[in-house]
Order: sequence, then structure tokens, then C-alpha cells
Amino acid sequence: MSGGREAGRQVRLGICGLGRAFMLMLPTFRRDARFRLVAAATPGEAGRARFVRDFGGRAYATMAELCADPEVEAIYVASPHQFHAEQVAQAAAAGKHLLVEKPLAVSLEDGKAMVAAAETAGIHLIVGPSHSFDRPVLEARALIDSGAVGRVRMIQALNYTDFLYRPRRPEELVTAEGGGVVFSQAVHQIDVVRLLGGGLVRSVRAMTGDWDPERPTEGAYALLLDFEDGAFASLTYSGYARFDSDELMGWFGELGSRKSPAGYGRARRALRGLASAAEEAALKRTRTYGGSGGGGAGDREPPLPAAHEHFGFLLASCEKADLRPLPDRLLVYGDEAIEERPIPAPEVPRREVMDELWAAVVEDRAPLHSGAWGLASLEVCHGILRSAAERREIMMTLQVPYRGE
Amino acid sequence: MSGGREAGRQVRLGICGLGRAFMLMLPTFRRDARFRLVAAATPGEAGRARFVRDFGGRAYATMAELCADPEVEAIYVASPHQFHAEQVAQAAAAGKHLLVEKPLAVSLEDGKAMVAAAETAGIHLIVGPSHSFDRPVLEARALIDSGAVGRVRMIQALNYTDFLYRPRRPEELVTAEGGGVVFSQAVHQIDVVRLLGGGLVRSVRAMTGDWDPERPTEGAYALLLDFEDGAFASLTYSGYARFDSDELMGWFGELGSRKSPAGYGRARRALRGLASAAEEAALKRTRTYGGSGGGGAGDREPPLPAAHEHFGFLLASCEKADLRPLPDRLLVYGDEAIEERPIPAPEVPRREVMDELWAAVVEDRAPLHSGAWGLASLEVCHGILRSAAERREIMMTLQVPYRGE
Repeated sequence: MSGGREAGRQVRLGICGLGRAFMLMLPTFRRDARFRLVAAATPGEAGRARFVRDFGGRAYATMAELCADPEVEAIYVASPHQFHAEQVAQAAAAGKHLLVEKPLAVSLEDGKAMVAAAETAGIHLIVGPSHSFDRPVLEARALIDSGAVGRVRMIQALNYTDFLYRPRRPEELVTAEGGGVVFSQAVHQIDVVRLLGGGLVRSVRAMTGDWDPERPTEGAYALLLDFEDGAFASLTYSGYARFDSDELMGWFGELGSRKSPAGYGRARRALRGLASAAEEAALKRTRTYGGSGGGGAGDREPPLPAAHEHFGFLLASCEKADLRPLPDRLLVYGDEAIEERPIPAPEVPRREVMDELWAAVVEDRAPLHSGAWGLASLEVCHGILRSAAERREIMMTLQVPYRGE
Repeated sequence: MSGGREAGRQVRLGICGLGRAFMLMLPTFRRDARFRLVAAATPGEAGRARFVRDFGGRAYATMAELCADPEVEAIYVASPHQFHAEQVAQAAAAGKHLLVEKPLAVSLEDGKAMVAAAETAGIHLIVGPSHSFDRPVLEARALIDSGAVGRVRMIQALNYTDFLYRPRRPEELVTAEGGGVVFSQAVHQIDVVRLLGGGLVRSVRAMTGDWDPERPTEGAYALLLDFEDGAFASLTYSGYARFDSDELMGWFGELGSRKSPAGYGRARRALRGLASAAEEAALKRTRTYGGSGGGGAGDREPPLPAAHEHFGFLLASCEKADLRPLPDRLLVYGDEAIEERPIPAPEVPRREVMDELWAAVVEDRAPLHSGAWGLASLEVCHGILRSAAERREIMMTLQVPYRGE
């Protein structure tokens, strides 16, 4: 963040979609004084009412109205994946900068169109938040950039969660509509691994698992990424709610809060009580902004986490050290000793996302997590699905390099 | 083990090679009363003298003499990899059953010849010990065989050790001679994963790391195995002595003994004091049987371990549970709860290897870890090297299925 010249400057933000993603950004928006929420667009009346009550801005039923709001400088697109493309086209045409939830889009065609739209309009498009903004990952990347640990050679990333058994809307279980773990979860892991590995994935070989007929979409995968420079990475994910890899992360949950192993099986048990997909979708709605009409679980803001967010076990083997980002520290396994670099708990969660947005909007600095970057990660997601379907390695063509500071 | 009919029966064993591998089997041989060591062959005079002192048998300078010993029923071939083929041919021709150290051989041609030689001679050939004999792995396999957890769908195996910095003979750092982690270490992991995955690997995609110019061979790898039936496995290994995955195994070391994290960096430090490859090879010799001439470190027999051996983190995701073998228990991650199945410490380490040898020699039962099985694992090792060199997926042609009891 730069103070100085821009003292007192606030970026005026519009929000597209007041669902679960927005809920997860609330602690950030409430604490980062560099930004002011001035408007929102959402189809739900309860959400609109609450937004106006909480932020004093304007709430619209449509994206068109939000884009027409002259006070809005940048829009956070937090709608379901499948709506991103159309909404980004509208916002870009209106000259708004964009923070777009990952994945950039579902189809590569949509993703390419979005990158082109942003370029044509001359606006910045950032794909985020994602776990490659996590402070411990960025610290590992900074250490690599310093040259102190040599080049990255091998990366191991694994994450075992209960993703598939969290309450879902029906389309979240339909791969073609962006459902399943590849579009929602792999994209995090890929972003993290591409950031550490330098960005330029040469090929993808992957297998996916679709093991629960009740939730017929990809719930697991394993993949190998070959990087252009000879580095390589192994990524594994399961969302089937059994082994929980948070055990390997000091029992911090994905959002950086302490977690109890005693909660084992909770996600499945909660679902078991539901009679239908409609009931499940309704349960999910209670977890959105304004969803439970005030006072309910949906209104509870997550407390400030005890540590940083993470996306499972991560180990980057470099020429001179293994780097292991944890939610509260970075472990540097050297030749003779393990160096422990503590990372203080965040005062503003996801501040790193807002840093990039601020730098883009206020300082016109090209973001690391640009549309092209997000498109490259989306290409790997499609590579996973194709590799698994065709049982062969898939070559990448849309990759862009990581560019350090 | 069968008692009954065969009460009092002992299998008369000959040993070919009194090096490090034999040292690691000593606790087994000393405790398993079903076997008697009656002869050995080794070029080193000190080893021969000690063998006769310890076991009262005969010690020969050559394998030919050992094969000609009429009392010997079976031979444990514990020589360096590159000698296996010739020695197995000799022993098979002499009608001796064989327990051959992994890997079966270095080249596939040698491996095929050995399998053929055993078949022609009508003797049993077992490839072992390897970590796929580890009790916790076998318990996981038995649970799968019971049908209680559905089919195996995805396996994760990772191991980070100090392998590359343990004292080595020069050829152990030359890939073409069977050096590096692929022949000595991957073969363990592959054996374990093939056992759980059903044996029939369809293809291998792998990358290898060769990152220390002082020890120019493969020190790390990551690979994906695609099984014929759609199951898949991700295997990762690093022998570069940084992150130590024994942390994920309750700080039990590979041989089942308790281990202190405070030993970090020890392997590299010990090597640093050596002036040459010759000095290093000499240090390794002190770790062989009779190597230090009595009373030295080489003579110390490892104490009975506190738990079972292991080869790093292992998780088999099945349709109805994730199975996680640990040195002292098997964790079964079910839908609602984690079931913990304690596994008592071994009274005879590696008894499972001797069970298979006993059943083959005494009961004429075809071993699970047959020559064909070991050849299939060796094929995957070669697949790793080829896949890494050619940067593409390699199809397998020599695989054999796991056959349960």
C-alpha cells in the first residue's frame, strides 16, 4: 500500500453478487480503509436491503445498473462462475476495473473474450481472491525471488477436504456448468503451484475421481505438471470428506481459523438430514449475505482468523532448501537446519488481494493475477478434465510467466 | 505360518552377500526359528569369519560354492543389484529357492532372464524384502480384500528422506549401474502402491530431479500411475535430506524405530567430513556385517523396533473410506468416524517376508512377490526414467495382477 500522494484516497467499489464469496470477503471489506463499498447488484431483495443498511450505498437488481453507476470505479464480480463472462463484458465496456472471482470463467472461450474485453477497454482485470494470494505463499515466492534458495525444482501440493459435501446449488455438481472440484478447487492449487513454479506449464497429466453417485461430478484428482524449465509439480485433491489434510497444517482450517479434529464427519451428517436438492440449495442460501433475514447463521461474520488462509499441504523443493508455507510461518528446510520464519496473523484478512487491486486502480500497476494469468490457470483446469477423459498428457498453449517484483 | 505337519521343520538358508542388506535382515534371522542360516558366500574374509562364528555354518568366497552346498534349500541374494542376474541363474540351476533383494535386477532383460530361469528350474523366486511386506500395508490390503471399503480409487504416497546423503559406494550414484533413488527407493513405493492398487499399471508419467552436482544421479521424482481399472496413484520422493516426511508417520523412522527431529542435517554433516569417494565407500563398509572387525558400529545389531517399518506417507482412498497405514496402526477414515486399528509391534521384524518364503519352500505356495511381480515393479522404474527423459507418458507391458488370498 502506498500512502503519501494518495493519502485519504479511497477506491469506490461495486459488488456484483452477494452470495457466499461476498460473505467471505466481508471481513476484508470491513477492515481495509482504502476501499469503500458504494453499490451492489444482486437479484435478492433481502441482500439489497441489508447492503444499504450496512454500507449506506446503492443496491441494484441488475448488473447493468451497477455498471451505469458513475461513482463505482471497480467492481468485484462475486457471482457464480457461469455469469462472469457476460458481467465482465458489461463492466469493461463501462470502464470499470475488475476483481473477478476464480475461476475466471468456465469455458476457455469465455475466458479469452474477457481478457480481450479488458484489454480493449483499457481496464485492469484481477482474478481473485485465490490461495495464491495467501501471505505464506507470497513469502515463499519472495524468498525464491531473492535467489537465496536457488531455483524451484519440485512442488508437492495436496489437499483433502469436505468440499463435495458442503451445501451446494444443483449446478455446482454439474461439471459442464463449472461444478465439481476441478473448477472450484483445482484452480486454487494450480494458481499456487504456478506462482511458485514460474507460471509456464508445459503439460498436464491428470486423473479425476467421480466416486459418489449421489454427487456425480469430479470429487478428486491427481495430476502432474511439467514446467517449461524442467521444474515439476504433483497436485492431489480429494473433496470426499474423509482424511483431512488440515492435520498437516497445524489444524488451521482453510480460512486460517483454528479447527478441531472432533468435527470429523460433520459435513456429511449435515447433508444427511436434507430431503432434496432444493432443500440443500436453500441451506446454502442461508449462508449468503442477508440470506437468513438477519440474526441467523448467514449474518454471522467470520471472526478475524488466528492465522493466514491456506490450501493444504505445500512443499516447494528448491536447489538449496525445501520451503513449506504454513498458516502462521514459513519453514525453510536447509542443509543443516530448519529456519522458522513466523508470519504474524493478518490484521486485514486477504489484504494481499486488495493490495493488488489498489495498485491496479490507483497506481495503474499491472496485476500479477491478471486475466491472462487466470486464463492460464483455467487452461490447466481444462487440461485436467481432458487428460482424465482421454487418458493422455495434454500440452498447454495459453501459459504466461510469473513476473516478480 | 503353518505349524502342525511341519512342526520342527526348519528351512536351511544360504546367504549371498553380507553387506548392508544382510545387516538389516539380521534381527529377522536371529528371531525367526523357522529358518536356520547354514552357509554364506561373500568376498570379504572378515564377513566370512564372523558368519561362521555367529551361525556355525559354512562361509564361501564364491556363489558357485554356496550353490553347490547340498544342505542349502534357499538362498537370500543380498548382493548389490548388478550381481543379481548372474547369481540367480547359478542358484536356480542348482535348484535353490530364492529370496532376492529388490530391485529384482537393474535391466529388464536381466529381470526377464531371471524369471525364466526360476520357471525353468521349477524353483520359487521371491523379490524382497520391500516395504510392500510391511504389516500395516498388508492390513490395509486385507481390509480392501474383505470388500468393506469398496474399490481402491486413488493412492497418495510420498517420502522425503536423506537417502542420497547416506554413505555410498561409487556405483550407487550411477544410474546406469542401478544407482540413484529410482532403482533403490522408487521400487519400494511402486511395490506398495501396486499392491494396494491391484498391480496392473497401465501407464507411467514421471519427472525426476538430479539437483546436486556432487551426487549426479536421480535424487527425487514425482509420478502418476494410471491403473487399468481406472484407479490412479501419485508418488513423490526426495532423497535430498531436507523436509523429512517421517514427521507425518508419528516420528517413526523407516525401520520402525522412534526417531528424533533433532537429528536434522546429520547425514549431510557426516558426509562433509569425508575427503573422497573412497573414504565414503570405506565408511559404508563399516556398516556391513563384520565390516568394522568386531565391536564397532558395524557390528551393532539394530534393536527390536517399536513399530513396523514404513516407506513414508501413504493414503489409499477407497469408495467407502480412506486407509492410512501408520507404523503402529491402520487409520480407517469412514463417513462419520475415524476407526483406529492398532497394530502391535513386531516380535520378529519382517516376519511377513519370511512367511512368504516359508510358504513357498515348505508348502510350495506361489508367492505374491514373485519374480513376475518384481519384474512388473522394475518395469515401472524404467518407465520413470524413460518418461522423465522423453517427457512423455510410457505405457506398461509387463504388469501382473495382485492376487489376494
